[in-house]
Amino acid sequence: MKLWGGRFTENTAPEVEEFTSSIGFDRRLYREDIAGSIAHATMLAEQGIISPTDAKAIREGLTAILQEIEAGKFSFSVALEDIHMNLESALTERIGEAGKRLHTARSRNDQVALDMHLYMRRAIVAVGEDMLYLLTALRDVAQEHAAVIMPGYTHLQRAQPILLAHHLLAYFAMLARDFRRLAGCWVGADMMPLGAGALAGTSYPTKPERVAELLQFGSLYGNSMDAVSDRDYLLEFQAMASITMMHLSRLSEEIILWASSEYRFIELSDAFCTGSSIMPQKKNPDVSELVRGKTGRVYGHFIALATVLKGLPLAYNKDLQEDKEGVFDTVDTLRFSLRVYADMLRSMRVHSERMRAVLEDDFSNATDLADYLAKKGLPFREAHAVVGRAVQYCVQHDCVLHDLDLATLQRFSPLFAEDILAVLAIENVVAVRSAHGGTAPVQVERQLQAAAELLSAYKEEQATRTARVAQAEFVLTK
Amino acid sequence: MKLWGGRFTENTAPEVEEFTSSIGFDRRLYREDIAGSIAHATMLAEQGIISPTDAKAIREGLTAILQEIEAGKFSFSVALEDIHMNLESALTERIGEAGKRLHTARSRNDQVALDMHLYMRRAIVAVGEDMLYLLTALRDVAQEHAAVIMPGYTHLQRAQPILLAHHLLAYFAMLARDFRRLAGCWVGADMMPLGAGALAGTSYPTKPERVAELLQFGSLYGNSMDAVSDRDYLLEFQAMASITMMHLSRLSEEIILWASSEYRFIELSDAFCTGSSIMPQKKNPDVSELVRGKTGRVYGHFIALATVLKGLPLAYNKDLQEDKEGVFDTVDTLRFSLRVYADMLRSMRVHSERMRAVLEDDFSNATDLADYLAKKGLPFREAHAVVGRAVQYCVQHDCVLHDLDLATLQRFSPLFAEDILAVLAIENVVAVRSAHGGTAPVQVERQLQAAAELLSAYKEEQATRTARVAQAEFVLTK
Amino acid sequence: MKLWGGRFTENTAPEVEEFTSSIGFDRRLYREDIAGSIAHATMLAEQGIISPTDAKAIREGLTAILQEIEAGKFSFSVALEDIHMNLESALTERIGEAGKRLHTARSRNDQVALDMHLYMRRAIVAVGEDMLYLLTALRDVAQEHAAVIMPGYTHLQRAQPILLAHHLLAYFAMLARDFRRLAGCWVGADMMPLGAGALAGTSYPTKPERVAELLQFGSLYGNSMDAVSDRDYLLEFQAMASITMMHLSRLSEEIILWASSEYRFIELSDAFCTGSSIMPQKKNPDVSELVRGKTGRVYGHFIALATVLKGLPLAYNKDLQEDKEGVFDTVDTLRFSLRVYADMLRSMRVHSERMRAVLEDDFSNATDLADYLAKKGLPFREAHAVVGRAVQYCVQHDCVLHDLDLATLQRFSPLFAEDILAVLAIENVVAVRSAHGGTAPVQVERQLQAAAELLSAYKEEQATRTARVAQAEFVLTK
Amino acid sequence: MKLWGGRFTENTAPEVEEFTSSIGFDRRLYREDIAGSIAHATMLAEQGIISPTDAKAIREGLTAILQEIEAGKFSFSVALEDIHMNLESALTERIGEAGKRLHTARSRNDQVALDMHLYMRRAIVAVGEDMLYLLTALRDVAQEHAAVIMPGYTHLQRAQPILLAHHLLAYFAMLARDFRRLAGCWVGADMMPLGAGALAGTSYPTKPERVAELLQFGSLYGNSMDAVSDRDYLLEFQAMASITMMHLSRLSEEIILWASSEYRFIELSDAFCTGSSIMPQKKNPDVSELVRGKTGRVYGHFIALATVLKGLPLAYNKDLQEDKEGVFDTVDTLRFSLRVYADMLRSMRVHSERMRAVLEDDFSNATDLADYLAKKGLPFREAHAVVGRAVQYCVQHDCVLHDLDLATLQRFSPLFAEDILAVLAIENVVAVRSAHGGTAPVQVERQLQAAAELLSAYKEEQATRTARVAQAEFVLTK
Repeated sequence: MKLWGGRFTENTAPEVEEFTSSIGFDRRLYREDIAGSIAHATMLAEQGIISPTDAKAIREGLTAILQEIEAGKFSFSVALEDIHMNLESALTERIGEAGKRLHTARSRNDQVALDMHLYMRRAIVAVGEDMLYLLTALRDVAQEHAAVIMPGYTHLQRAQPILLAHHLLAYFAMLARDFRRLAGCWVGADMMPLGAGALAGTSYPTKPERVAELLQFGSLYGNSMDAVSDRDYLLEFQAMASITMMHLSRLSEEIILWASSEYRFIELSDAFCTGSSIMPQKKNPDVSELVRGKTGRVYGHFIALATVLKGLPLAYNKDLQEDKEGVFDTVDTLRFSLRVYADMLRSMRVHSERMRAVLEDDFSNATDLADYLAKKGLPFREAHAVVGRAVQYCVQHDCVLHDLDLATLQRFSPLFAEDILAVLAIENVVAVRSAHGGTAPVQVERQLQAAAELLSAYKEEQATRTARVAQAEFVLTK
Repeated sequence: MKLWGGRFTENTAPEVEEFTSSIGFDRRLYREDIAGSIAHATMLAEQGIISPTDAKAIREGLTAILQEIEAGKFSFSVALEDIHMNLESALTERIGEAGKRLHTARSRNDQVALDMHLYMRRAIVAVGEDMLYLLTALRDVAQEHAAVIMPGYTHLQRAQPILLAHHLLAYFAMLARDFRRLAGCWVGADMMPLGAGALAGTSYPTKPERVAELLQFGSLYGNSMDAVSDRDYLLEFQAMASITMMHLSRLSEEIILWASSEYRFIELSDAFCTGSSIMPQKKNPDVSELVRGKTGRVYGHFIALATVLKGLPLAYNKDLQEDKEGVFDTVDTLRFSLRVYADMLRSMRVHSERMRAVLEDDFSNATDLADYLAKKGLPFREAHAVVGRAVQYCVQHDCVLHDLDLATLQRFSPLFAEDILAVLAIENVVAVRSAHGGTAPVQVERQLQAAAELLSAYKEEQATRTARVAQAEFVLTK
Repeated sequence: MKLWGGRFTENTAPEVEEFTSSIGFDRRLYREDIAGSIAHATMLAEQGIISPTDAKAIREGLTAILQEIEAGKFSFSVALEDIHMNLESALTERIGEAGKRLHTARSRNDQVALDMHLYMRRAIVAVGEDMLYLLTALRDVAQEHAAVIMPGYTHLQRAQPILLAHHLLAYFAMLARDFRRLAGCWVGADMMPLGAGALAGTSYPTKPERVAELLQFGSLYGNSMDAVSDRDYLLEFQAMASITMMHLSRLSEEIILWASSEYRFIELSDAFCTGSSIMPQKKNPDVSELVRGKTGRVYGHFIALATVLKGLPLAYNKDLQEDKEGVFDTVDTLRFSLRVYADMLRSMRVHSERMRAVLEDDFSNATDLADYLAKKGLPFREAHAVVGRAVQYCVQHDCVLHDLDLATLQRFSPLFAEDILAVLAIENVVAVRSAHGGTAPVQVERQLQAAAELLSAYKEEQATRTARVAQAEFVLTK
Repeated sequence: MKLWGGRFTENTAPEVEEFTSSIGFDRRLYREDIAGSIAHATMLAEQGIISPTDAKAIREGLTAILQEIEAGKFSFSVALEDIHMNLESALTERIGEAGKRLHTARSRNDQVALDMHLYMRRAIVAVGEDMLYLLTALRDVAQEHAAVIMPGYTHLQRAQPILLAHHLLAYFAMLARDFRRLAGCWVGADMMPLGAGALAGTSYPTKPERVAELLQFGSLYGNSMDAVSDRDYLLEFQAMASITMMHLSRLSEEIILWASSEYRFIELSDAFCTGSSIMPQKKNPDVSELVRGKTGRVYGHFIALATVLKGLPLAYNKDLQEDKEGVFDTVDTLRFSLRVYADMLRSMRVHSERMRAVLEDDFSNATDLADYLAKKGLPFREAHAVVGRAVQYCVQHDCVLHDLDLATLQRFSPLFAEDILAVLAIENVVAVRSAHGGTAPVQVERQLQAAAELLSAYKEEQATRTARVAQAEFVLTK
């Protein structure tokens, strides 16, 4: 029988039961639901709302159920709708009347909100761990190849030589921002909603502050209607995740290009590629393609949740049940993508000689030729035009700029002198970009140092949150 | 061992295996994959590419596997990546060498495309059935309440009286367009891709026309690269589904409003509502809320797939594996929503007396007062202004227009005469809107008639497609 | 003064006026609004609702205003909110009372719906023209390079050789589907909503059928509430446009790759590239990048409109005003992208010798080696494994398959014989893929022929719609 | 002539010029571009890269151009592509050679990045101001109606009585989170990209730290490739704005409901409503509808930008030009919506007597009846069932719970006693919800106090950022 069926005279249509039931996906919240219920019962007893005996029975009953679930022995029922009713019903079966008192002074509206906040905090810690894992890999791989020079691109046209480490550290910078944004999501997740009841609070002398303390929450919702209807922290997470996946899709695009026959900049380990069922020669960068493709589902989850929330009046509406599956899937997608990328990057081989060969044969030093003239007094715009003509000449004569001898160069401008050859050397072109943020080795060294410091600060931050979550779980074991 | 592993020296990393494997969701395509393989093998034998004995062994092996799967006895393996490899591997285990010959002259790229085309055709037929189910319900319920007058709204403000049937038939018109659009998706789904190989066709003397014939396809892809990379038919389906869900979200919003205490226009059957775990008086229109909420996931799936496809070079890329889960989920969501809505509408009670009472107490006939003056020669813009003042007067005196006596009305315009009272009567206000498309009973009757005719035409169309799909399945049983 | 201000005692706040005014963008509908008003007035007079004199004055007044607008002499006012009020107000200024009678028996709700339907029909015709322009270019360029062989890719790894024409014709196939989908949008656009009034029809003896006839509409809305609230035809257009832009984004990705130093498959004309303000050597494929980027805004417009419509109750709501800007921008984006692409493709140079050279140096014929063995009786799966080992051998010895002599090949399988060399030749690899849809010259020739026939059928279809729109415009000139 | 045309031999096609030109929208960045150029020139001179005379000429030339633009006398040219080239070209026209030196040591890639960072900082300050304006209004209006009791809803069904102030403060809480998220965007906007050059830094001895100081930036990009390709700060802003608009769409939905005839909870001022062109009685909540509708465009802009960035390789690509229009439009939409909402809320009239009357006639106190029994020892689940039956009884007898006399109540449970009547009184039902976050007056008072404190903290934060932006503008005037 439904636990809410009092005023109803007809049974729920079976198709409706199946349609509205959420146990298929919210069972994933079993730990959170049990932890929340134990904290709730503890507070109820402390406030004298239920007896200490009842609280003890509840606590013991729930931890027994927890063990059963984790041992794969618990069977969930669709007719019981959701994780809350499944657990409460199992509890009552075991401990009788006391189980029926557990729901005193709370509603499913604030209960599920509590579960999702607990879940989200755990997810943030887990995703944070994976981000640090990838950040560390990016920095390590950059360090390892600190001396490798490669062509840098704009518009997918070769532009100027850069250090491979510089390129990888650009991704470090992106992922570092992602970690910062993830940390920003913590604030919204770390708010305690229990006590909001259905929407207005509860008529019992509850103490939400105590529940927050037991579960290690940083703050409480100040407004009960907000507490049960707020999904900002989930939507913010979906937005953050979209940005992270966007970064990984960009990295994926590059790995796919670099691993192609046309580029041959890297070779991925067999362990991270798959073959073709028909073409025996193929070695496909599946992981990168799949991560790039999975960007779609995360963008989709953002839009899905944003659509759900659009125009929804206060306070709770059943539409909000649609908040979970997308979040679960985003967490799984992110975690997988971050970890597999770290491992794949660490195991890839870098063809530095090929990168170098490419540079010898193109115009990546054209800017430096123009800068040379500008430094000799020609306005930059005119220097640009001079070099444009020299490039055109080379294209027609099938050579590159450093193939031209001084006499030829001087036909384009009398300002060219002996020292121009040193200027055009690839190493020099990289080395002179030594102002803050440039690709010169000295700057890349500075970035590697800064990255190490940032990582160590982030790890400390991460440790604090991990500890908070671990302490909150403590409620399950004492 | 991987079936594509020839040139590989290292094993796939287990995390990669889990990440890139699709068997978790593409197992849903087992019927399609088996049907496609049987048709392929039949053609290969007819073309002399494999022997008749091999073809027979393949056919018998696959139908045995089919039965095993449907009996729940088949066990799928993640290491075998996808449904194709799982089935082929099981086949080879049973029938030996012949199984290894099945993949002759095809690639997974065209194989999975074939599976999805077969799936999509079946899905279109199934969703079409459900649309007709709801369309029929909408028409029936409209017919049943053909005489009920209710307030019509714009800006959620009462505007003019309408027939409830007129309101419901607006949804009939929307869903009818959805059915037309669904039929439009059939064209793209009903194209046969097998024979495209990996991307370029195949070196064997295959006959794709024959496979198309066996599987009842209306047309073949004319270009193999298009055949393996085209996902238009899925994206078009997601777009179509988004529009349908949008319609259902609008209907949901109205059902939720009508079932509220403020409106009290309808009462939903208990079978389609749920209660509150804490508030004993609650009877919540969960089904409508959930359908409205599920609009989000369908919009999300559209964006997910559109994102996957953005900027993808030809021909096949692993990103395309991301096309399936969203489509499966959209099909399930649509089917459930369409059917549950039909049942819910049929079982709802209509409070026609309440609708009527509301009309007696508002200004829904104001336009007719203005029209009255305009018909007497006052330019409409001035008539509008006159009635505006009369409404203002009523608001101040807490009455409505038909409460005003002739003398009072004449204070606003001397054009008012005795016949104005008949004009203001609700039934008259409805009846005069009798031009094409208007809410007058005569027009609603015409719409009901047209709806019946359209339904019968649609059912015929549907029957044709159903027969095609059924005949294609025949390959599984002969 | 507001034309609707009758019951109001306070003026609209100026900020509200600015916020709710749509004249900034809906002025674009001036032709549509005037055509609709002339048709409406004509019908009103024919039905005896207004006098012939008034109708004549309206017609003449409006055509004078039309000329003024097109001469750039008309000044629009924000305070008059929208195009409808701006025009009506100007008309009344000119012709007095008759102008005030124009709005008889219609509402802005059905009026703006009519305008958008007229606009959308014109837009479909215009976009259709541009699609045909690009389709013709794709076919012509394919024809021109019918003999060019290039590497075909999957996973951005070289897979099998194909004809460039085959590759381009894959895009022809996509765009052809786009044209079909565009044609599908016509059905929804070609419905006449006038007569729906605010939502319920009108109390006047109007004849919507006559308006439809004057404006050349294929059908009428059967339900007035649907007529004023339906935006399906716009959302369907946004979906169709998203798919088209997705196709162009894929083509763009390839053009960008092909024009890169790594590929050097094509060279774009200077006329379609831009340079760098700082790097004199750069020649950037800006057009392709921008088209790829503009995919985003079109996806965005789809989501924007889908969001607007989600959960909106019947009938008209002000939210619907948000339907226009996105549609206008999508039309502009599509038109520009389609035309510029056609011109750019026609002017690009193809480096066929480079494409060829690439093929000589890779494993694109590996599948044919496996097929060779399979044709000699080895099960395909084993043949695949044999060739995999041969490829591995080549990679280690830095050569490709056709560099191996027979003796070496026979070390991998005794089935290899003299005839293998002819099999591996690139021309042969292409030519044998001659079943329906394959890349063999004979199939590409068939595709070119089919493309010509399709184009001619599409042009006929297009001509019919163009004529319909032109005839509808006739109302403006008689 | 193009400033980058050196190596080009053909002119840009005019259609391409129009298509790729951004001056139509990026002219909005003229202040930012001029400020950035002045700071750049100042640094160049300080570093000895250009002469002090040149720097002075540049500064004076640019401030003259600034004045011209603000006086509406400057004419922009499409052929000059963008705001950067338009300004540089005008500058060179005026001051000759020195103008050509301005572009030394920078590229358009880092220049436009700088402009957008400057713009975004200004936008964040402006939107922050508007958020505070609405937050203040929400708090004030809540304070003003602190004693008003209204029905609280879940599932749009009346649930429990709440204070109107409590309801409004839920929106305060949402908007306060928006302000916090907006502040989070500041970190990403407040980074200085100049010095990154095209992608790799510059060969000149520049000092980006100095430019950052002049323009009051909090930090510098540590990696030049990241600096020119990062659009996180814009995407994060679009995400933040989507959440804010989602909140406003929810508030809009409620305002629209409350202003309807069915609810009659509020009356909006005429100044914030519009009428109907045909129905003289209508007073439509256009502002709320439009804000709800505009949620769509902001969601759309998020998706547009996310789509642009998906799969984009480093560093700069022309696709990135698509980042601006959406951001500009979101800023305008947000600013308008926030301000108009504040004004509208302040001017609305609250019908507290109507709200009260509604509560007297429903079951909003049913939970308290169940709690009463639970407090007397009945397990809550059983109490819930008892009250369910009582509600059912009332529905059948057309009364509400507080209409039942004690004897009747006792037929449902013997636990009911005299004190039950006081429990059921609406004021009591509200007052007992006095734990943290509940709707009791004491808690609402606490919230109002907390809101005041938060506002004052936010205003301080806001003042700091405003000062930073103002100081950065100082560069324009000295």
